Amino acid sequence: MVELLQRNGCILKLLLALFLFLSLVEVPAVEARIRHYKWEVKYEYKSPDCFKKLVITINGRSPGPTILAQQGDTIIVELTNSLWTENVAIHWHGIRQIGTPWSDGTEGVTQCPIVPGDTFKYQFVVDRPGTYLYHAHYGMQREAGLYGSIRVALPDGESEPFSYDFDRSIILNDWYHKSTYEHAVGLSSLNFSWVGDPQSLLIQGKGRFNCFTLTTPSLDSDVCNATNPECSPYAMTVVPGKTYRLRVASITALSALSFQIEGHNMTVVEADGHYVEPFVVKNLFLYSGETYSVLIKADQDPSRNYWMTTNVVSRNATTPPGLAILNYYPNHPRRSPPAVPPAGPAWNNVRSRLDQSLAIKAHQGFIHTPPPTSDRVIVLLNTQNTVNGHVRWSVNNVSFTHPHTPYLIALKQNLTEAFDQTSPPDGYDFVNYDIYKTPNNTNATVSNGIYRLQFNTTVDLILQNANTRNPNNSETHPWHLHGHDFWVLGYGEGKFDMFNDPKKYNLVNPIMKNTVPVHRYGWTALRFRADNPGAWAFHCHIESHFFMGMGVVFESGIDKVGKLPSSIMGCGATRGVHKP
Amino acid sequence: MVELLQRNGCILKLLLALFLFLSLVEVPAVEARIRHYKWEVKYEYKSPDCFKKLVITINGRSPGPTILAQQGDTIIVELTNSLWTENVAIHWHGIRQIGTPWSDGTEGVTQCPIVPGDTFKYQFVVDRPGTYLYHAHYGMQREAGLYGSIRVALPDGESEPFSYDFDRSIILNDWYHKSTYEHAVGLSSLNFSWVGDPQSLLIQGKGRFNCFTLTTPSLDSDVCNATNPECSPYAMTVVPGKTYRLRVASITALSALSFQIEGHNMTVVEADGHYVEPFVVKNLFLYSGETYSVLIKADQDPSRNYWMTTNVVSRNATTPPGLAILNYYPNHPRRSPPAVPPAGPAWNNVRSRLDQSLAIKAHQGFIHTPPPTSDRVIVLLNTQNTVNGHVRWSVNNVSFTHPHTPYLIALKQNLTEAFDQTSPPDGYDFVNYDIYKTPNNTNATVSNGIYRLQFNTTVDLILQNANTRNPNNSETHPWHLHGHDFWVLGYGEGKFDMFNDPKKYNLVNPIMKNTVPVHRYGWTALRFRADNPGAWAFHCHIESHFFMGMGVVFESGIDKVGKLPSSIMGCGATRGVHKP
Repeated sequence: MVELLQRNGCILKLLLALFLFLSLVEVPAVEARIRHYKWEVKYEYKSPDCFKKLVITINGRSPGPTILAQQGDTIIVELTNSLWTENVAIHWHGIRQIGTPWSDGTEGVTQCPIVPGDTFKYQFVVDRPGTYLYHAHYGMQREAGLYGSIRVALPDGESEPFSYDFDRSIILNDWYHKSTYEHAVGLSSLNFSWVGDPQSLLIQGKGRFNCFTLTTPSLDSDVCNATNPECSPYAMTVVPGKTYRLRVASITALSALSFQIEGHNMTVVEADGHYVEPFVVKNLFLYSGETYSVLIKADQDPSRNYWMTTNVVSRNATTPPGLAILNYYPNHPRRSPPAVPPAGPAWNNVRSRLDQSLAIKAHQGFIHTPPPTSDRVIVLLNTQNTVNGHVRWSVNNVSFTHPHTPYLIALKQNLTEAFDQTSPPDGYDFVNYDIYKTPNNTNATVSNGIYRLQFNTTVDLILQNANTRNPNNSETHPWHLHGHDFWVLGYGEGKFDMFNDPKKYNLVNPIMKNTVPVHRYGWTALRFRADNPGAWAFHCHIESHFFMGMGVVFESGIDKVGKLPSSIMGCGATRGVHKP
Repeated sequence: MVELLQRNGCILKLLLALFLFLSLVEVPAVEARIRHYKWEVKYEYKSPDCFKKLVITINGRSPGPTILAQQGDTIIVELTNSLWTENVAIHWHGIRQIGTPWSDGTEGVTQCPIVPGDTFKYQFVVDRPGTYLYHAHYGMQREAGLYGSIRVALPDGESEPFSYDFDRSIILNDWYHKSTYEHAVGLSSLNFSWVGDPQSLLIQGKGRFNCFTLTTPSLDSDVCNATNPECSPYAMTVVPGKTYRLRVASITALSALSFQIEGHNMTVVEADGHYVEPFVVKNLFLYSGETYSVLIKADQDPSRNYWMTTNVVSRNATTPPGLAILNYYPNHPRRSPPAVPPAGPAWNNVRSRLDQSLAIKAHQGFIHTPPPTSDRVIVLLNTQNTVNGHVRWSVNNVSFTHPHTPYLIALKQNLTEAFDQTSPPDGYDFVNYDIYKTPNNTNATVSNGIYRLQFNTTVDLILQNANTRNPNNSETHPWHLHGHDFWVLGYGEGKFDMFNDPKKYNLVNPIMKNTVPVHRYGWTALRFRADNPGAWAFHCHIESHFFMGMGVVFESGIDKVGKLPSSIMGCGATRGVHKP
């Protein structure tokens, strides 16, 4: 019952066995099972897009094994670091970690990194059904391939407000050929070097880079080999006439994506673990860190296969689209569909993306009504700055940097030296700041100060986008909150108007999410209850943006956090003392 | 007095100031000074051989700053790890660390690795004059460029048994274009991939790779640029007529080297911190981890410069020779010498290398007479094996692996679970083992067991070389002992004869060293006193060989080790507990 449940077949058999067992001996239904995984994390050579590079794998795989669980289950992941000289930490994206803030896996915030040779035990309850992710949350390791899916089913006997025959998960990703070290050094050097466009897009870990476009063509066929089976397109097999719940998630390092299936509409039914009032789309926009469930019906000509494609939006990227195959059984899964793969919307079609954002509402009957007012409003201006010659992203002119002692430990043990005790500001110069102009950098600083939120209060977060360092440019940022879901109260263009815009908030049926886009030159208004004791990151989910300082940390109810496990310690002020 | 003493000019000024100060106020001479360094270790892009790659630097440099000290000084290095996600540890090669075994910097043996963001304080006394090294001792980080020189001068008023006008240090290295991660994954995979020949040889951190020979020629001139000043040859300026003490060290990842200076003989006067009965050579052989002082006189035609060259011996390598310039002042240091750079001896000239080994004896008047007999003889057979499908190096059929808790801590705190309590054997099957045949792998194992040596006993170590996995092949291995010097009692060809060979030992004037070669199909006999309490590695100094298991660890007098600093803890059984 507590073994590695990583294959559908295995699970079906197990569930069948469990069912038979229960029907035979009539014991009460087992609730709150423990799902126990043992993972080894290491570097391996892989060719996910035909180009061979070092990838961080879990038990030999990237994406890692999908965690399949039922609401209320306890997940235990014993993670052994076999990266030789590099540490690791894994975040369980979308899991609120109620009562277990030390298992959030955010290096520098909730734990020290796991050093090579050590085994760290993550243990937490998946208290809500839905679609979630896990991924590295240390340095820029996520883009090295350390990520996977979490799928939490409803308890037996409970049903969703929609029906389907089969359940499938795919993760979308963008992919670079340079190492995370090359990216990190480029981004942090005085001689700044941007990571640039990804070389390819991956669908469920598989993509296709055109080896002939290498700027340094390799004579070694091993380096880039278009016939490598590792980079054959991902094929999802469907039975004609059946309806599929397709859980689609994006874990991109940089790219906003559009996802589409040739000849098939998609009905959006879930977002970040919450039921959506269904709406139909031809393409689904996904920002890094977002998860959706869509329903698709295999109702097209069953004699052929169909393309599934994904392409970069919001940036005019050189990255080619990612391709996968919707395989109608019994056609061969490798058979190319007899059509041009569908192109998604133009990269600069901002309106259609905003429309999708606005379309996502809570499902009738599953509405969590937000508190009508908030106790505190924090406006977070996102700007690109230069601080001491380094290119940084800042929030209210403060560029985030990690402390050496994780906040959770420093706060709980009152180690006031461990981080800057001055909180960053709750706003910016609303009157004079022109969001359409390149930022004035004179007052930007680097700090590890945090926001302290009174426990059980309601907080509004207004994310305000602005111009980057380049004239007439503003970028899309997906912001992700740890430890909580927030209500998405509204989106707007231009500068947020603190007096009039709140009147337009959707307080009736706002969706709850954990990741949300802030559109170019626009704002996004969120509300959440600071009801989960701990220290929680809130940051842009673009890997390089967070690395460059685009994030903040919230503390709330630290006195209510239980005894910290010593396993999260060992760095900074908690370095190297033997157990008594 | 205790500031960063990293530049000769600064030191001369400081010494002059000190001299003036002392002569004016007549205070007693300051002995046992503290030399305080603050180092930041990070990744940077460098082009040491014209090819741009990520290099681990200290304060922006590779090689790192030279430590200049006087006998009896205390060295304090506060090392801050800025490698983002990678840990580090630095070994002080040749420094015995008497009373400070926790400062030996050997990850897994004497300390836990230093995690990013942390600052670790190494503190030790340099108790003997001589030429030493420092370098990373964690994973394969050394070959990423983390190394430098230590030069310890005699106390004021004392003099050496030879004279010279100026003192200079250079380090020789071999250089790869792949990352340490790529090497480590290749070596440890079931699909074994050998590191291959280095791309170039560096003299004092500078080499020259021929960019046109890239198998994947780059269109990006930034990747390999022959005009980059970072890869202009190192030039050592000499004043005609003067005599120079040149301290030459090798820190190669793999290569045995020959070093020569066009038109100049070299008089060998020091080896690994011990005075050598002088002898003259045209070329100096250096194995990884060895240091020598040679005297050279600038007595040639002063109107031109001369080549200094180094080339690979003992392997038939594709690596081109390394070039530097002996610059006769006032010729321009960049002026190429008007001659073909001297080639060293043929790579397979084994005799000349053995001759040098045999020529190195202790200087008359500086002989440390070895104990006439030993209390224990450990014969260490070096073989290449396959263990569970992995290619490994073994010693007496045991392939070394690091424990997760450093031995020093595990031994001192009696954590018997931390490593295999079974010691590896003191010998091998002398009667039946054929060193000229490929090894029989059936009995090879991987273990982290160690040798326990009775304190203050005399131990003989016989390193026995043999055939590799390839027929008719045996390789040269430089073995390095931590925490001690050993007497080099003898070298021999073929299988060591325990009855007759000891009769030929040099017990009269053997040199003491810390690193010594074991020649192909040969043996090397060493004797040392286990008189330094601690846990000490003894291993092949070839980076990939030690990584593949070619090493052992000695414990001796652990009960006499003082209180361990908590700063060395934090991993394995000492993971993450907060200071009380």
